Amino acid sequence: MMDFARPPIGVFDSGVGGLTVLQEIRKRLPGEDYLYLGDTARLPYGSKSPATVQRYALNAARHLVDRGVKLLVVACNTASSYALDEVAAACPVPVIGVVEPGVRAALAASVRRIGVIGTEGTVRSEAYQRALRRADPKVTVEAAACPLFVPLAEEGWGDHPVTDLVAEHYLRPLLDRGIEALILGCTHYPLLRPSLERVVGREVRLIDSATSVAASVVADYGGMMDTWYGEEGDVHLQFSDASDRFLGITRRILGRDPEHLEVVDI
Amino acid sequence: MMDFARPPIGVFDSGVGGLTVLQEIRKRLPGEDYLYLGDTARLPYGSKSPATVQRYALNAARHLVDRGVKLLVVACNTASSYALDEVAAACPVPVIGVVEPGVRAALAASVRRIGVIGTEGTVRSEAYQRALRRADPKVTVEAAACPLFVPLAEEGWGDHPVTDLVAEHYLRPLLDRGIEALILGCTHYPLLRPSLERVVGREVRLIDSATSVAASVVADYGGMMDTWYGEEGDVHLQFSDASDRFLGITRRILGRDPEHLEVVDI
Repeated sequence: MMDFARPPIGVFDSGVGGLTVLQEIRKRLPGEDYLYLGDTARLPYGSKSPATVQRYALNAARHLVDRGVKLLVVACNTASSYALDEVAAACPVPVIGVVEPGVRAALAASVRRIGVIGTEGTVRSEAYQRALRRADPKVTVEAAACPLFVPLAEEGWGDHPVTDLVAEHYLRPLLDRGIEALILGCTHYPLLRPSLERVVGREVRLIDSATSVAASVVADYGGMMDTWYGEEGDVHLQFSDASDRFLGITRRILGRDPEHLEVVDI
Repeated sequence: MMDFARPPIGVFDSGVGGLTVLQEIRKRLPGEDYLYLGDTARLPYGSKSPATVQRYALNAARHLVDRGVKLLVVACNTASSYALDEVAAACPVPVIGVVEPGVRAALAASVRRIGVIGTEGTVRSEAYQRALRRADPKVTVEAAACPLFVPLAEEGWGDHPVTDLVAEHYLRPLLDRGIEALILGCTHYPLLRPSLERVVGREVRLIDSATSVAASVVADYGGMMDTWYGEEGDVHLQFSDASDRFLGITRRILGRDPEHLEVVDI
């Protein structure tokens, strides 16, 4: 099945959340081929140690590079936070993470108080906090880990009273400190948008990893893309585990059955 | 550190939930030494496929057998449901899972309608459903997967309005069908007891994996235990990942800091 007419764009995540990123890149670059790897056998990364996340991310990156990707998108915020430098150093192709694009999008909104939410790993790594302050020392950053958000998204409760309550619990301290924008620092969180929008209100702008990464891919690497002749490229999905659960979520994100899917041992 | 005066009892779980089982066994057999392995680098098992769970469980079992355990307790309901036969066939020591003891405890309560809750893997495997019907064809079994319960337990929300709401959502169909007992088919669920008791009420008896496994260990294997001379045995913990998150939950379950703890690559 791994039969591409030209080198694909590689997208990697611990699970299926990174498909939200792939979807956004495809909207902008529909003629490209894509190879997506979800490390569903070992997810989640968000609660694990930096050393373990680095080991898993390097594994996954090598797997994609061996299959000839021309660009690697680390569409997992925890892996981007803990392992981007290691992955970039180990890969002979350009590597793009999800942290810097989110930071750029937040700063482009010209706000002063920025909230960041993510897994425990992402928040503890301080990757967003450091990148924001480096880009603009005048911004104030308020970060919060939201460990229940990924399970809620996977349960399909993105628009649900329980999620409203949980979001209120996690986000109230940030809202009380007057954040004007909120970076959704996890690829699963866009699936919770209805509940999140209710809780943060219209004054707080939600910055979505998926759209900001896709914009960065086009801005920074558009030159290396193939000319589009109007034909859609292929999307190949590889998962390290084939549970029905993840297939259901994959369908929900893609809006259809995946065409090329295989289970790989990485 | 792996320095036992005699062969320890091995206890294995995908994470730290199995420590609730270890604690209950220790109450009854305090003079024994224990070696606990939590596969925290690859948890959770509950959402993964049978093949992956079997591979991980065999890995973990071999690791403990290589370290000289005299008895192996598979203190993970998903692994017990999907991989107990495989693990027992591969191990030269007695292997005890958590499904049969829970079934025995439920039937001892002389009830006719039994509810079972667990991870998606545990429920889908039908291990409880089959074991209950095999033991007593007259019982009615109502099962429900509760994917949010483990994250809620790990968040420390065992006594929390959000957990009450989620429990009401998952358990209402079972309660409406008149269950008289509810098997907590996951080692994390005893941590949710306050919320669960509020939702199920006093008429429904909660059957806890941890206490029923401990009772089975004593009943079935008491003869192979060492005579107790009044001195407490050692507890050694091994985790495949050392995230602070799991250490916090470990402390919460043990009620103290673990004395012997190491990270192992399995």
